[in-house]
Amino acid sequence: MSIDHIAPVELEKSYRLVNHGPTVLVSARHAGIDDVMAAAWVCGLDYRPAKLTVVLDSATMTRKLLEKSGTFVVQVPTVNQARLTYDLGHSSLHDDPEKLKKAGVELFQFEGHDQPFVAGCTAWLSCRLLPEIAVQDRYDLFIGEIVGAWADARVFRDGHWRFEEASPSLRSIHYVAGGQFYTIGDAVNVAE
Amino acid sequence: MSIDHIAPVELEKSYRLVNHGPTVLVSARHAGIDDVMAAAWVCGLDYRPAKLTVVLDSATMTRKLLEKSGTFVVQVPTVNQARLTYDLGHSSLHDDPEKLKKAGVELFQFEGHDQPFVAGCTAWLSCRLLPEIAVQDRYDLFIGEIVGAWADARVFRDGHWRFEEASPSLRSIHYVAGGQFYTIGDAVNVAE
Repeated sequence: MSIDHIAPVELEKSYRLVNHGPTVLVSARHAGIDDVMAAAWVCGLDYRPAKLTVVLDSATMTRKLLEKSGTFVVQVPTVNQARLTYDLGHSSLHDDPEKLKKAGVELFQFEGHDQPFVAGCTAWLSCRLLPEIAVQDRYDLFIGEIVGAWADARVFRDGHWRFEEASPSLRSIHYVAGGQFYTIGDAVNVAE
Repeated sequence: MSIDHIAPVELEKSYRLVNHGPTVLVSARHAGIDDVMAAAWVCGLDYRPAKLTVVLDSATMTRKLLEKSGTFVVQVPTVNQARLTYDLGHSSLHDDPEKLKKAGVELFQFEGHDQPFVAGCTAWLSCRLLPEIAVQDRYDLFIGEIVGAWADARVFRDGHWRFEEASPSLRSIHYVAGGQFYTIGDAVNVAE
């Protein structure tokens, strides 16, 4: 893959990478095992330090990995990855050790971050798990502090998404249910 | 306002009203005072019973009202309400008792729910606050059980959004920052 377009994002503005509500991929690595799952229930939580929440079903291998490693990645897939995203959300590494390969996932790394980053996405948030055992157990809700953020500068730069200036193939996707997604649409700017 | 198009939504499917990540309006009523605020940080949490999370800054009057009443409403505004949404997110009832009027908010009620529902939205979720004081205090994170759900059947029916079959003016909006929104875009269906 080409990483020519990837640029770091200020941590204080990194919430903007998920603020518009995209469906994301969550990945984790532990003891040489990588997994990636799809998640629609991810959400900003704080600006400084930057934090987010994500809901992870107890049946998922990704959750087990991040509980052990204490780190995970949230990344924003494109419309070109809608099928990949759907497949990752409807298969489990528990049942199929070839899950990632079959879905077409290619992994890469950012220097200094020993985590599985999914190629072809437009934004990546490297997170450190903030243990909140009570809400993890009761609600499957996990809190991450964002410790690294990067985006594809063709669609996110100067702290803002620029979907309208880039190829439609780079648009984020927003899941409903039953295989139904929407892409992000037109820009609407409300004068300040 | 016309409520001809509004139909109830099964609670188990009500998460779908926010699953695609729209920016929402959160409203609450206590002791005769109504407030409405904008929130991008709202997220599904569970299917049965249906629950959601929302992040509410401690400075907001809406938070004070829902802490007292124990109930709140999450509703999905349209692109026609982008300015209204922005204005509700950038003014406070603490400073301006005329906030709702100035933003152009019209309220209505569903029978049996003594809460302020905002007219012109496309979906409404009536929520009961599930007290989780530790996370409320530490993260400004509130958990609601969804006890009533309704949608505008022109854009949501049979458990799915149908934005592509309705007027573009009914599309949901997705906030980034600094007055920048995107509407929801094109449908992408991944065959099961």
